[in-house]
Amino acid sequence: MKISHIEHLGIAVQSIEESLPFFTDVLGLECYATEVVEDQKVKTAFLKCGEVKLELLEPTSPESTIQKWLDKGNKGVHHVAFCIEDGVANSLAEVSEKGVRLIDEKPRKGAEGLNIAFLHPKSTCGILTELCEHPE
Amino acid sequence: MKISHIEHLGIAVQSIEESLPFFTDVLGLECYATEVVEDQKVKTAFLKCGEVKLELLEPTSPESTIQKWLDKGNKGVHHVAFCIEDGVANSLAEVSEKGVRLIDEKPRKGAEGLNIAFLHPKSTCGILTELCEHPE
Repeated sequence: MKISHIEHLGIAVQSIEESLPFFTDVLGLECYATEVVEDQKVKTAFLKCGEVKLELLEPTSPESTIQKWLDKGNKGVHHVAFCIEDGVANSLAEVSEKGVRLIDEKPRKGAEGLNIAFLHPKSTCGILTELCEHPE
Repeated sequence: MKISHIEHLGIAVQSIEESLPFFTDVLGLECYATEVVEDQKVKTAFLKCGEVKLELLEPTSPESTIQKWLDKGNKGVHHVAFCIEDGVANSLAEVSEKGVRLIDEKPRKGAEGLNIAFLHPKSTCGILTELCEHPE
């Protein structure tokens, strides 16, 4: 697996409206897009910080995995997404052979049209790890 | 406050020896340095991922704040450190005026000789936030 950089940090928030001022007014970052990802039952807001995006994730349903994560008392960084240079599908096969537990057996579509797949935090030092690539 | 990029992600681990293979063998990142920060009662290992460092933090004492954080059942990303272009001291004054709660009232020395200061997660959407700058 060849990683070029951290594509984004997924940050779980109960309310984008209430959280955004910290990122814009305090940190001085710019929110350049919002998007609803029906599949994952979240509303997202994107900010850019150097080469890394901050992706705020607000649950749109009590059934959202983000809502369930928040309900357990968690806050802040929910996952770390790495940009893969040699293909997400290849990398899944490679790390699976090394004994890493996968959440997604094959890539699926994520926010911003990226191909994404998650590794299981049991195999990743507790960091929910997303692999992603821009589709050709 | 003017942020140029994310300087590092602080990642709490119980053991660097046991955790490092995920970052090197699975993710393919390179560990380029280790350091003991007596002040914070941690051993650190640094990896580079694009412009962002991953800083693994292993407690060296039961009194370490990292050990206490792990003991609460937390894992993974412990803090996010932003590189400040217009000075950490200036930024602390600026955000304090905006009502942000500070952990450090003024900059202190962190790993790699950086000037650092932490903001309180109560004011930062639950993300333990570090401001840092390279000393002149």
